[in-house]
Amino acid sequence: MPRKAVVLVSGGLDSATVLAIATEAGFDCHPVCFEYGQRHRAEVDSARRVCLRRTGREPRIVAVDLSAFGGSALTDTGIEVPETSTEGIPVTYVPARNTVFLSLALAYAEVLDSRDIFIGVNAVDYSGYPDCRPEFINAFQALANVATRAGVEGRSMIIHAPLLDWSKGRIIEEGMRLGVDYAETVSCYQATDAGLACGRCDSCRLRAQGFREAGVPDPTRYVVGRG
Amino acid sequence: MPRKAVVLVSGGLDSATVLAIATEAGFDCHPVCFEYGQRHRAEVDSARRVCLRRTGREPRIVAVDLSAFGGSALTDTGIEVPETSTEGIPVTYVPARNTVFLSLALAYAEVLDSRDIFIGVNAVDYSGYPDCRPEFINAFQALANVATRAGVEGRSMIIHAPLLDWSKGRIIEEGMRLGVDYAETVSCYQATDAGLACGRCDSCRLRAQGFREAGVPDPTRYVVGRG
Repeated sequence: MPRKAVVLVSGGLDSATVLAIATEAGFDCHPVCFEYGQRHRAEVDSARRVCLRRTGREPRIVAVDLSAFGGSALTDTGIEVPETSTEGIPVTYVPARNTVFLSLALAYAEVLDSRDIFIGVNAVDYSGYPDCRPEFINAFQALANVATRAGVEGRSMIIHAPLLDWSKGRIIEEGMRLGVDYAETVSCYQATDAGLACGRCDSCRLRAQGFREAGVPDPTRYVVGRG
Repeated sequence: MPRKAVVLVSGGLDSATVLAIATEAGFDCHPVCFEYGQRHRAEVDSARRVCLRRTGREPRIVAVDLSAFGGSALTDTGIEVPETSTEGIPVTYVPARNTVFLSLALAYAEVLDSRDIFIGVNAVDYSGYPDCRPEFINAFQALANVATRAGVEGRSMIIHAPLLDWSKGRIIEEGMRLGVDYAETVSCYQATDAGLACGRCDSCRLRAQGFREAGVPDPTRYVVGRG
């Protein structure tokens, strides 16, 4: 019987690739997706399409109201999404987001009796986010091994972050090889509800650059001509 | 200026005591409380009363739908709350609950720029719960120090768990000294919406035993005579 894995899926390019990697590696994938007060619905719609196509399963959708705390341009409509790069940790950083998401994935893994969790964090593009670094993944794995029944019973939990040190171009190349349809994914920080991308935020810029690096036509649907 | 602290408050006896301890230690306390699909509303109502009396602040109430995963008698109405003690990890264990709650508290601490989080976990009474052990608190603190801006910038996060090795009796004694009104707290796993306790579940039994140990009259309002 294939090993069960919980896969965090956001509707973006990275997690769609991770889902394809985990499926190809033979895991029985149980996707989970979060409604956390993000600005737009397009992420969740995109996550559903990606999961259904790859696994035949709807993602488990979990509501967690990170906007209760504010503090990020992605959950607080009072903070504008920047359209130029900035120094240090950007305002699009959602405090402790990956910690919260991995914790919820851990809860799901416990219920499923799964010991494998896949997450599409990437340290190259998001070096300004504390929770996208290898130290973070290692610390979470150590936590998972003392926080769970499996850990207490000596069965190790593994946090898989296969994209951790990949460039966006390499992620796209691998996804293309595995048949990921990137037209179904949405990366933009301020996409419209229909999933049209702004073409100007950091996330749009990194994504477009990735397609150029990979030498693949960019299938993103933009609101206006690319900024 | 006093240091800001985030304090996890559940409406129960332990967290009410922790809030009193953190306040007495001079922290500027910001309570946070979770609506996680628990069986009854009495917990949140009780948390509000306790926080208002002690800090003059409403707790930040965060919705996180742990019932999406099921797997526990506390969030899944299909699983009965047991009324006799069992071996090993009990069915009232909510998978990864303290990991999820501490992660959300960490998000709040980041937004507040606070480096101190207080939680009322207790290893003596809940030795069957993996996430109520000192190893868990230590691992979460290590995670917090790589997962956050503060950690990246070299300002240490501290997870305070002052009740970790206290007996229920000692917790109540300390709370009485600090003027905690335990009549305002609700511990029962299956309290009525009005906050009446069943008197028969594990949590009710531990609480009643604590009042006996402390030699203090039990102010709990029970549905029927104690079981």
